[in-house]
Amino acid sequence: MGALHEGHLSLARASVAESDVTVVTIFVNPTQFAPGEDLDKYPRRLEEDVKLLGEVGVDHVFCPEAETMYAPGSSTSVSPPKISRKLEGEFRPTHFGGVATIVLKLFNIVAPDVAYFGQKDYQQVVVVKQMVRDLNVPVEVRTCPIVRDNDGLALSSRNIYLSPEEREVALTINRTLSHVRQQILDGQRDGFEVLTEMRQMLIDGGVTSIDYAAVVNPDTLESADPIQLPVALLIAVYVGKTRLIDNCLVTA
Amino acid sequence: MGALHEGHLSLARASVAESDVTVVTIFVNPTQFAPGEDLDKYPRRLEEDVKLLGEVGVDHVFCPEAETMYAPGSSTSVSPPKISRKLEGEFRPTHFGGVATIVLKLFNIVAPDVAYFGQKDYQQVVVVKQMVRDLNVPVEVRTCPIVRDNDGLALSSRNIYLSPEEREVALTINRTLSHVRQQILDGQRDGFEVLTEMRQMLIDGGVTSIDYAAVVNPDTLESADPIQLPVALLIAVYVGKTRLIDNCLVTA
Repeated sequence: MGALHEGHLSLARASVAESDVTVVTIFVNPTQFAPGEDLDKYPRRLEEDVKLLGEVGVDHVFCPEAETMYAPGSSTSVSPPKISRKLEGEFRPTHFGGVATIVLKLFNIVAPDVAYFGQKDYQQVVVVKQMVRDLNVPVEVRTCPIVRDNDGLALSSRNIYLSPEEREVALTINRTLSHVRQQILDGQRDGFEVLTEMRQMLIDGGVTSIDYAAVVNPDTLESADPIQLPVALLIAVYVGKTRLIDNCLVTA
Repeated sequence: MGALHEGHLSLARASVAESDVTVVTIFVNPTQFAPGEDLDKYPRRLEEDVKLLGEVGVDHVFCPEAETMYAPGSSTSVSPPKISRKLEGEFRPTHFGGVATIVLKLFNIVAPDVAYFGQKDYQQVVVVKQMVRDLNVPVEVRTCPIVRDNDGLALSSRNIYLSPEEREVALTINRTLSHVRQQILDGQRDGFEVLTEMRQMLIDGGVTSIDYAAVVNPDTLESADPIQLPVALLIAVYVGKTRLIDNCLVTA
């Protein structure tokens, strides 16, 4: 969706390193925003984005207009896999339908052999991978690690919404993930206790509200209690009016 | 869906004539049948089908098992365009969702440049063409004309269900289409009168029930009254327990 940061650029760099030709799509997709979400104020910096991608060695940038991607009368969409109803899906019920449809359309237009997604949007990667499997889409999906600022905050185009005070609060998210990850690595297997602690740390850290804090199987996104490695720790919170998500994998 | 007749073979012949490599898919797709429809008794003659296709010069036949096409846990599907809710969609509300999903999956597996569909399933072609447009599927869809027996009955794998007496009744369908087509070519522009006459002819001919008889815009499938050429005449009826569809285009 553009407004590129080092997280996005790490995907472009992975592709440039591993592929003959790299195409980056930049499209702030209206159908994955619900009414009241931040479609209108979502940051757009196309000129700067294209310059950054050129420096990374990207061959093509595909940045269509919404009217091009959704012609008048267009009405076919992808009904995303059931896994999209959990977690993000509970709070953004139309989100993954919009994501799955635009990703399939972009795949059909660009026809990549390999597509790079960031682990930051953890459930999105799971949904896209299952769509690819279920619809036999001839694309290999590769996941790249989360890129963080020096203070640990996961990079997000939405971080620019944060005031300095809010940014302090937002650091609680990664601290919570790291703390809980260590507890699990130290042998904690009680999922309920872990969840209670996650929520308490987030509240103590000053987040405005918690959409979810979850310990799940990394593939099925089913709650993992008792905890059996590997698990994914997933968090979605509001800090002020800004919704932030973050996650980490815990493997044996 | 196999049980090949000359209509199917005409599609294979068109592809062999126009393409370097021809792949035919044969798959009785369970998700486009509703409970109570004829999935179980639908004719299956794979060995004979493969022999016929070899004689036509087809290079490959792809005939997967249902378990291969729908792996356990698979849950992504195509939500078909709105046009799929009309006509067939009123009587078979889940049909085109199943069709659109399997067609997209087969397109993704076979990766054809051109795909051949029969005009016999008129609305199916319209739905598939719109799906291809809406989802940017890189396939050109070509339509081949309806193939009829000497007595005028449109070829259908379901014709084998008809008793000799039922087959006599079924001939009314094409007679009705031909009669109404001539009336329109002779200047009839009153859509309501045409529909009334179509229904009366079908009833007089002895059909068991009429799902629909329609005079529509060939692209939008909206009712055409007053009639403006071109129009498509579409009929779906039961003869005994067998559901038959047929259609014809009327162009200036």
